[in-house]
Amino acid sequence: MIKVGIVGGTGYTGVELLRLLAQHPEAHVEIITSRSEEGVRISDMYPNLRGHYDQLQFSVPDAQKLGACDVVFFATPHGVAHAMAAELLATGTRIIDLSADFRLRDAEEWSEWYGQPHGAPELLGQAVYGLPEVNREAIRSAQLIAVPGCYPTATQLGFIPLLEAGLADASRLIADCKSGVSGAGRGASVGALLGESSENMKAYTVKGHRHLPEITQGLRLAAGGPVGLTFVPHLTPMIRGIHATLYATVTDRSVDLQKLFADRYANEPFVDVMPVGSHPETRSVRGANVCRLAVHRPQGGDLVVVLSVIDNLVKGASGQAVQNMNIAMGLEETLGLSHPALMP
Amino acid sequence: MIKVGIVGGTGYTGVELLRLLAQHPEAHVEIITSRSEEGVRISDMYPNLRGHYDQLQFSVPDAQKLGACDVVFFATPHGVAHAMAAELLATGTRIIDLSADFRLRDAEEWSEWYGQPHGAPELLGQAVYGLPEVNREAIRSAQLIAVPGCYPTATQLGFIPLLEAGLADASRLIADCKSGVSGAGRGASVGALLGESSENMKAYTVKGHRHLPEITQGLRLAAGGPVGLTFVPHLTPMIRGIHATLYATVTDRSVDLQKLFADRYANEPFVDVMPVGSHPETRSVRGANVCRLAVHRPQGGDLVVVLSVIDNLVKGASGQAVQNMNIAMGLEETLGLSHPALMP
Amino acid sequence: MIKVGIVGGTGYTGVELLRLLAQHPEAHVEIITSRSEEGVRISDMYPNLRGHYDQLQFSVPDAQKLGACDVVFFATPHGVAHAMAAELLATGTRIIDLSADFRLRDAEEWSEWYGQPHGAPELLGQAVYGLPEVNREAIRSAQLIAVPGCYPTATQLGFIPLLEAGLADASRLIADCKSGVSGAGRGASVGALLGESSENMKAYTVKGHRHLPEITQGLRLAAGGPVGLTFVPHLTPMIRGIHATLYATVTDRSVDLQKLFADRYANEPFVDVMPVGSHPETRSVRGANVCRLAVHRPQGGDLVVVLSVIDNLVKGASGQAVQNMNIAMGLEETLGLSHPALMP
Amino acid sequence: MIKVGIVGGTGYTGVELLRLLAQHPEAHVEIITSRSEEGVRISDMYPNLRGHYDQLQFSVPDAQKLGACDVVFFATPHGVAHAMAAELLATGTRIIDLSADFRLRDAEEWSEWYGQPHGAPELLGQAVYGLPEVNREAIRSAQLIAVPGCYPTATQLGFIPLLEAGLADASRLIADCKSGVSGAGRGASVGALLGESSENMKAYTVKGHRHLPEITQGLRLAAGGPVGLTFVPHLTPMIRGIHATLYATVTDRSVDLQKLFADRYANEPFVDVMPVGSHPETRSVRGANVCRLAVHRPQGGDLVVVLSVIDNLVKGASGQAVQNMNIAMGLEETLGLSHPALMP
Repeated sequence: MIKVGIVGGTGYTGVELLRLLAQHPEAHVEIITSRSEEGVRISDMYPNLRGHYDQLQFSVPDAQKLGACDVVFFATPHGVAHAMAAELLATGTRIIDLSADFRLRDAEEWSEWYGQPHGAPELLGQAVYGLPEVNREAIRSAQLIAVPGCYPTATQLGFIPLLEAGLADASRLIADCKSGVSGAGRGASVGALLGESSENMKAYTVKGHRHLPEITQGLRLAAGGPVGLTFVPHLTPMIRGIHATLYATVTDRSVDLQKLFADRYANEPFVDVMPVGSHPETRSVRGANVCRLAVHRPQGGDLVVVLSVIDNLVKGASGQAVQNMNIAMGLEETLGLSHPALMP
Repeated sequence: MIKVGIVGGTGYTGVELLRLLAQHPEAHVEIITSRSEEGVRISDMYPNLRGHYDQLQFSVPDAQKLGACDVVFFATPHGVAHAMAAELLATGTRIIDLSADFRLRDAEEWSEWYGQPHGAPELLGQAVYGLPEVNREAIRSAQLIAVPGCYPTATQLGFIPLLEAGLADASRLIADCKSGVSGAGRGASVGALLGESSENMKAYTVKGHRHLPEITQGLRLAAGGPVGLTFVPHLTPMIRGIHATLYATVTDRSVDLQKLFADRYANEPFVDVMPVGSHPETRSVRGANVCRLAVHRPQGGDLVVVLSVIDNLVKGASGQAVQNMNIAMGLEETLGLSHPALMP
Repeated sequence: MIKVGIVGGTGYTGVELLRLLAQHPEAHVEIITSRSEEGVRISDMYPNLRGHYDQLQFSVPDAQKLGACDVVFFATPHGVAHAMAAELLATGTRIIDLSADFRLRDAEEWSEWYGQPHGAPELLGQAVYGLPEVNREAIRSAQLIAVPGCYPTATQLGFIPLLEAGLADASRLIADCKSGVSGAGRGASVGALLGESSENMKAYTVKGHRHLPEITQGLRLAAGGPVGLTFVPHLTPMIRGIHATLYATVTDRSVDLQKLFADRYANEPFVDVMPVGSHPETRSVRGANVCRLAVHRPQGGDLVVVLSVIDNLVKGASGQAVQNMNIAMGLEETLGLSHPALMP
Repeated sequence: MIKVGIVGGTGYTGVELLRLLAQHPEAHVEIITSRSEEGVRISDMYPNLRGHYDQLQFSVPDAQKLGACDVVFFATPHGVAHAMAAELLATGTRIIDLSADFRLRDAEEWSEWYGQPHGAPELLGQAVYGLPEVNREAIRSAQLIAVPGCYPTATQLGFIPLLEAGLADASRLIADCKSGVSGAGRGASVGALLGESSENMKAYTVKGHRHLPEITQGLRLAAGGPVGLTFVPHLTPMIRGIHATLYATVTDRSVDLQKLFADRYANEPFVDVMPVGSHPETRSVRGANVCRLAVHRPQGGDLVVVLSVIDNLVKGASGQAVQNMNIAMGLEETLGLSHPALMP
């Protein structure tokens, strides 16, 4: 049984980790930390977990106790993993960080987008970007894993078959993404009130969202060269789900795109290439660790439209984190992650 | 491995059965029937099930094949189980009927409320009302189980501690119930369109809803005598969930109601009596086979307010059906039903 | 043209006042105050008002400038009107207070429920409770009007025909009320996030909500004696709307309740008694200053069920405030308030 | 007072016409037709209209009576206006058609997309496309006006400043559009149930939506030559609203796009060009006849992102129809259309 610690478990990715790990046959949550909620039972904060974690309480983070775990998840705001990672890694435990702290390879770029100095640039060399469909082998032996963001997961999985095959004009990619409100986290904010965000659609941060450099970094690797991406995120009146609508110009109209995608993901347990003509729905992945994709070329032109849906809290965060844990700990990759989505 | 057949699997209770049974370690769905969708793969109709039932197709109901199953669930409109039950029972299989066909003990009363003759009054003698918290022993040996309705489950579980203890004035009970829209089923109807039912609350069928006689029948048994119940259902702009707000006048203010409820359900795996002062939320049971209860006596008066929440498709339908299957087949009662609710 | 000032216009009742007054042919908003938003144009905060109030900015409250208005609305948290009312009244202007500050006749009771001393008990004598259907004559000459709360409006309008006629057992009234989330205001709070309150139903403050004494005070006047009320508010996943489901025991089953209600409100422009058997929907009053009512007596028993719906921000707040202004200023009562509800 | 007839008033555009015309000072609805609802009072079908149209009933369409009206709106499925237009036009009345029947100039193209022969090609010569921001002069004297579709309105208003100025590469335009569910109409359908479309996002008809040729036709006129457009519509879990996110490549990065848009719409009462950096929200136009626009050029590249929001039932249908009536009848263009949006 794998001993699990969770740092910062009061947000949505924290409770989702707990939900998923409650069903995991080989993992047990030993510690969950929160400075502000010390002593509170997690089942009091999250009544859906009553009957599952009735003894577990939030405690103040303690590097020694966390170090005794086999795996420590960080479900924290950015900067926290920077501050604690080195000490924890020294204990020999593995870190699976759901925050943005170790996603970007370039500390300066990180610093520009997050508005503060990078707190642990010396660890970047060992950090592995935890997108199993790209980095599975590196994840197996990684001690520090940076779980991809939600938009980056949906967008990269949709674009990389085209880019790896050299089939798209990498200089003009567009990702028009729609997210449920849980992506903004559980912090109190006026904009995320039901009174403000229900019955409403809007774009936000069109001039530049923090996930832009992360996505670009991943696409650059897939393309083997520079990419130009326009990324427009939108807020959608639902709790969970990301729908990425991706646009790319193909350089060869004769290619069988359906086959390209199907082949690329043939052995991926959590990527589902849907039949020709499909329109994946976000609800078809609600609560499940799956990315469903469909590829279209409307009116037979050279513009390809890829539709990519995930649950932002599962394949876009906590589910992917557990998938990384399974890989890194040598378990069956799908362990604890094989339940169907909740629909309706 | 238990062989399962499902009659009429195209509606919400059908797909929910499939979702739950996909995670059940001791059951396997062999047959699922639908006349209108014959030959359609269920994963084409329900993309959340892709990867789980990729070969299973809807077939025309065939009593012989169904009879070869250990358990046959009916997830059908009323009347269908009436027509098929006798033939199936003769094969020796068990029937777990999610429809209303065998819930009422009195065929005439059934006929009045459902507007057609009862199709199988001769089977009423062997039908067992599948509310495990009341009828567990009878369920163990039942061959024909009538799964309670959603409102009746939430309402009975909330009232029966009071009634069994003789503590409430049984002549003036009120159940003010709020349901998500999935309770109306998956049939196309103007009233259940998002354009009509979102951003809206309304009561309906105040003059008399079909669940009224079912609830009354159960409360009568608990009270050991006649009861007077006013039941007002409301449509709420959400997909899943029932919130029953129950009002009863207690005849003795000195009783410790919290203890009464806690004791009544102390050994029930799927009834959660929450701490004093709690307000259970429907989302805390979304997707889970749990009823959460809280009991209040506002301003120290003699009016008791019980708050009772379930997921109408799980503890109010398909989850309870699987719970019945587990009991009737001699399995661990919680098998396949122990995952936490999806929250947020 | 009536000169209008608004104190505290950044919340939902403030923007709703602005929306309604933009269409009012005889009123003009001269001043709107907010300490925190000084200098911000209201159309920058509320883009729906672009093109309507393009010059108006939030300013710091100034008693002299406010005093130069004919009417000053308070759309503030409780306590603010207490602090400013005396000085303003001395200028001769009228105050229409949407907060709870002057709703309760009894300063001590106010203090108990609001957890602070009453700030202006000496003004209670001149404060008029602004429910036009009860107090129209007093409103005409009032200088200080306390606009009823949202739950109190829906609940009182539903109960008073029964109580005024002496037809209900006043000792056991029940108000089971469901409210949209905007009733909680525009302040950032975790509980009102879409991620927390969408796809969810829950009761809250069952042990006692601040509107309870306000409702009881009004019902006592209608009944001409003491009343016993159990009031259970619920949070519903929608932005606007209150649905009050009211339960009372009638002492005489022979009375024509439909006629009783129709007669009581025959001359009321903003109370709509719907036909026998109706189920009013909250969306049928969205954005409109209307209370729609239906009265039922299920199964011919002695329990009466009254269904009462309003838009909490209109007839439950800002619309009723404008109605009070019209009455107090000698205008046509329906001026600026006669548009239909937005449906769908 | 203008006499108004409405053919086919049972759908969402019909009830929205009634809502808007109830507030119009110079128009009176004389007739509203529906074969299926003959004799039903519209306030019984649409309780939000109680108190506004209490006598008006649906009647069977009668060309003579309709011909006695000054204006006849068609709020019908496609094909109906084809069948009735010639006879009505002969009476001298004006037709304002909200359906797609006369939007396309090319009868054959219409026939291809709508799957049936064009029913009145001989009238196309006199039909005027009712987008006032483009065709105001022609509308003044038109007898047959084709009101633009919802997607076409949002999309054309966003693209035409760029195309008219010759600033965009017209061969690769992208319109990623998100619509509320009311756009699908009020017909009963499984896909539009709250249980299916709430908490969900999906694209649909990526291979080709009927609004594509209409949009292309309008953009061609603006560009003065051929255009290539990829149009991907999405279904969003809300009732009202369209959010069009438009992508175009500019040929000259030095142009002041904000000024371009502001100048183009400087005199347009119903197009609001928002300040630099804005993100218009659909709720800011809910119930109002306004299109709000913002223009972005992310990261200073050559890809322009235009954000365009309307209420699909108002500026995207019934409001625009009334705007056309005002123009065609020589009234003030904003008459009856100047109320602010409902927010929250």
